[in-house]
Amino acid sequence: MNKPLNIGIAGLGTVGGGALKILLGQPQLLAARAGRSLQVVAVSAKNKKKDRGVDMGGIRWLDDPLMLASDAEIDVVVECIGGSEGAAKALVEAALKNGKSVVTANKALIAHHGVALAQLAEASGALLAFEAAVAGGIPIIKGLRDGLAANRFTRIAGILNGTCNYILTTMWNEKRDFADVLAEAQAKGYAEADPSFDIDGVDAAHKLAILGSLAYGIRPAIDQVSIEGIRRVTLADMQFADELGYVIKLLGIASEHEDGILMRVHPCLVAKGSQLAGVTSAFNAVLVEGDAVGTVLFEGRGAGEGPTASSVVADIMDIARGAAYKPFTLPAAQLGAGRFAQMERTSSSFYLRLNVIDQPGVLADVTAIFKKEGISMRSVIQHSHSPGEMVPVVITTHVTQEAAMARALVAIAKLPCMKEAPFRIRIEGF
Amino acid sequence: MNKPLNIGIAGLGTVGGGALKILLGQPQLLAARAGRSLQVVAVSAKNKKKDRGVDMGGIRWLDDPLMLASDAEIDVVVECIGGSEGAAKALVEAALKNGKSVVTANKALIAHHGVALAQLAEASGALLAFEAAVAGGIPIIKGLRDGLAANRFTRIAGILNGTCNYILTTMWNEKRDFADVLAEAQAKGYAEADPSFDIDGVDAAHKLAILGSLAYGIRPAIDQVSIEGIRRVTLADMQFADELGYVIKLLGIASEHEDGILMRVHPCLVAKGSQLAGVTSAFNAVLVEGDAVGTVLFEGRGAGEGPTASSVVADIMDIARGAAYKPFTLPAAQLGAGRFAQMERTSSSFYLRLNVIDQPGVLADVTAIFKKEGISMRSVIQHSHSPGEMVPVVITTHVTQEAAMARALVAIAKLPCMKEAPFRIRIEGF
Repeated sequence: MNKPLNIGIAGLGTVGGGALKILLGQPQLLAARAGRSLQVVAVSAKNKKKDRGVDMGGIRWLDDPLMLASDAEIDVVVECIGGSEGAAKALVEAALKNGKSVVTANKALIAHHGVALAQLAEASGALLAFEAAVAGGIPIIKGLRDGLAANRFTRIAGILNGTCNYILTTMWNEKRDFADVLAEAQAKGYAEADPSFDIDGVDAAHKLAILGSLAYGIRPAIDQVSIEGIRRVTLADMQFADELGYVIKLLGIASEHEDGILMRVHPCLVAKGSQLAGVTSAFNAVLVEGDAVGTVLFEGRGAGEGPTASSVVADIMDIARGAAYKPFTLPAAQLGAGRFAQMERTSSSFYLRLNVIDQPGVLADVTAIFKKEGISMRSVIQHSHSPGEMVPVVITTHVTQEAAMARALVAIAKLPCMKEAPFRIRIEGF
Repeated sequence: MNKPLNIGIAGLGTVGGGALKILLGQPQLLAARAGRSLQVVAVSAKNKKKDRGVDMGGIRWLDDPLMLASDAEIDVVVECIGGSEGAAKALVEAALKNGKSVVTANKALIAHHGVALAQLAEASGALLAFEAAVAGGIPIIKGLRDGLAANRFTRIAGILNGTCNYILTTMWNEKRDFADVLAEAQAKGYAEADPSFDIDGVDAAHKLAILGSLAYGIRPAIDQVSIEGIRRVTLADMQFADELGYVIKLLGIASEHEDGILMRVHPCLVAKGSQLAGVTSAFNAVLVEGDAVGTVLFEGRGAGEGPTASSVVADIMDIARGAAYKPFTLPAAQLGAGRFAQMERTSSSFYLRLNVIDQPGVLADVTAIFKKEGISMRSVIQHSHSPGEMVPVVITTHVTQEAAMARALVAIAKLPCMKEAPFRIRIEGF
């Protein structure tokens, strides 16, 4: 047996505490699999007195997490502080500079500073590992970097935010409104007090930028992700989608097109019975389309103590075994800026919900706009007939260019019968 | 860039030819990701004249595959000959002894001789990689060894044989009989002329033995796998299963119990809407249950040129990067013989189909036997009522010990009303 791998953990919240539990809970199993024992020698966290449910005897307690980076005993620093700046960034930078490998679940840090950190790691011969940063317990980083490495990726589509998937699933299962379910999720701790990071798609965009980097050999490009969240999705949309044979999911999609890479996070209509349609509640899933492998689906829990810690400890075991990969697959210096497709030039089918005053001529006005923009209608549904009242009219289209649809929506919004902005959801085929 | 990795391929059928196409088709992409170029320097196959759709100029042709093992230029031998003995085994042994790493898709070779081969690899510092041996393009070997390495595995359940899944899916979708669909599959080349390796569960058992080895740190134990195929599954069973809320799948299941590890391949009733129930046709899937991660599903194509070659080339890329894992996760010398649970001592719910002469007292006879064995009935269905004719009676039970059910089936088979042996399928909960 080789000499032990000495670990320092910064932050003992859900992720750090979970990793500590696994490391202290089944040391023999982990040592046998990793080829050496994994020893937690030091930790740093806010509250020293909190009972963490494990015996921390023999583990040094450091008041300043930054001390882990220069601790002579430590081989690997596990950063579970969080946040893309401040203490987390300072710790990771210092550790990598000192040749200590770093494991982190910090998607914001990796999405914003991953390349610079990978360069530090490569320069000092350390590893930087972040499996837990995307899709919790699902080994999708390793999947793209190792298991599917022989493929050119045509499309990667993921349910990457558990909060959104929980809200959408609960709305449909319990036939409740968005605001109602969000409030409950906040009360239960499934959603943050300020939920915008999740429900506006920003969290999913961070994760997508990391996946896009691995898939396409580019720097994580959060600023290139077109982002739209789930605030405007209503139960009525779900009912119409159901009638049309779809479910509504928030997807993060990275794909390769003639004019470049496209990355986007937005609600999608996904056909019932397709693989991503069945991924419910707090589960995450990533569907990978490769030129050789075809379609591979990875599905599992996207958050929570056990799943996230599973990925953190797996990264530690990689390091213990002497893994020699580059953090983003390519050497950091070779990661390109990327050539990106323009969202407005891409095409898809659309679902539109127009809340209109029910009066003769509405459909004629809308179809006249469609004609002008070259948009071909596939179906139209108007269930209620209440002259003079507001009713929803739902239209689906054949494949239409984004720009044409955007112009049509501006024109439709100006129609006198329209009482609120039209709402469109893209239909994503699988 | 490091020096190229020189590759020799033995066998240019579906797998070897597919790997060759990927390696020659996108060399820059692979080199960038692997950190060095992957060069096919020599091949050996039966038919030198066959057009393989790629330019093989500059690649040496060896008449005897065994020559690859001693070729000074070659770093990695890709064994795509097949079969657990003979040329494949001789080549892999010789290559590993000479310190050349080996990549293979040969599940029979690995299931039967994997440990001895891993010992050769470890002794010479070479790698032995076999991602393609289980579930084709799905990176499940790496998933268990790397991505989910921090978990104690409570259960691993897989749809591991594409031929069986294709037959079962087609029977149900097209409402056709087993024999009919099998004959068509053979005509189309989806099933072998002698289909027993697939449909009797032997192929799935080989794959399960390999997964069991990785999950539980034991030698692949094909002789410990309880095996039952799909020959007796009828369309009527599928219709009854559907009525009861299930679909029928051939699963390979490895699980850990108080008295040891249990490995089994048999048809299962799986609840509709559960993850494995939706895996259709030639797709494979593996559901992994870990103590930390919960449930993770891997789904993809289990066979075919592209998917299998995707896994073969991924293994080559691991070797190019200097990966340092042990073939079965633990060092070969540490792999245990395993402590195995006895199938007859385990329990599950059962589906029984009894083809009986419709006459008063049948159910009384059956329930008397159940009472004697302590078996609790959950439901009974008899649709047809044709006194004196043969009719199917379908019974489901609550959780029952295997041994009690086996005794009950022997007793039921002896009832005068029984015209053929009763058929039971286990109900597997997810």
